Amino acid sequence: MGECVVVFELLPALAEKTFITDLRFCNVRLEDNRLYPWIFLIPRCENALNVTLLSVDDGLQLMREIVLAGRALAWLFPHGQVNVAMIGNKTPQLHVHVICRREGDPDWPGVVWDGHCEPYGETARAEAAGKIRLAIEAEMTKPEYNQNQ
Amino acid sequence: MGECVVVFELLPALAEKTFITDLRFCNVRLEDNRLYPWIFLIPRCENALNVTLLSVDDGLQLMREIVLAGRALAWLFPHGQVNVAMIGNKTPQLHVHVICRREGDPDWPGVVWDGHCEPYGETARAEAAGKIRLAIEAEMTKPEYNQNQ
Repeated sequence: MGECVVVFELLPALAEKTFITDLRFCNVRLEDNRLYPWIFLIPRCENALNVTLLSVDDGLQLMREIVLAGRALAWLFPHGQVNVAMIGNKTPQLHVHVICRREGDPDWPGVVWDGHCEPYGETARAEAAGKIRLAIEAEMTKPEYNQNQ
Repeated sequence: MGECVVVFELLPALAEKTFITDLRFCNVRLEDNRLYPWIFLIPRCENALNVTLLSVDDGLQLMREIVLAGRALAWLFPHGQVNVAMIGNKTPQLHVHVICRREGDPDWPGVVWDGHCEPYGETARAEAAGKIRLAIEAEMTKPEYNQNQ
């Protein structure tokens, strides 16, 4: 991932989201919507518009971190499904949505983009970020995510 | 991927879609919507509900095939963005949407789920599937997708 980490700048729409932690390749942030456990993985890459423009090796590291973060979220929160999406039509910087969903949630079974939103409030948002950070850090210690590429 | 390929059955909502090709891990099918170059990658796994339930190795192979198929689609069709999503709320079997998007398309910049749809018609659908199959098969020959896990 040598050439990929030199210049990394978040678009404002991503920079304003609450920081959770840094994985080896991705910056992890929280969506400000208390209706859903919803995080973003943002590769610390210069000018990555979408996953087809990453090297295959960087794509593989991204997938390791998607699985890692998705499992941490799924461990923390009741859910029936985990949605994973890379869209980037409105915010043209590669970022991965990872979202716990369940039957009866406000947008179920539809998608959450342009769906219901209730901001956390400052304290609850910091608490959510802290709780998710701990779960991700616990998951990170497992050897399966740390294989060489 | 040994234990994962023994029993593979498609849910009806996926089985009815037009077959394009088989990659090493995924079955590839076409969404019947001529408004978008839109394919599905469906891991040939038993009971895979979402990516967090795959082994990390299977997740990595899935990502190789997402990048491969996404690049084939992006090579074929004009686009400004490539959307990649694993949702599965309505069809609870792991399948990856890979979709070419561009400014001015019928749902831009929104998402395509529950968006505009115009079926191909039989001849055009077969033509689209054939064209995508050739592009994927050309992309498959590149060594970067064939590394050992």
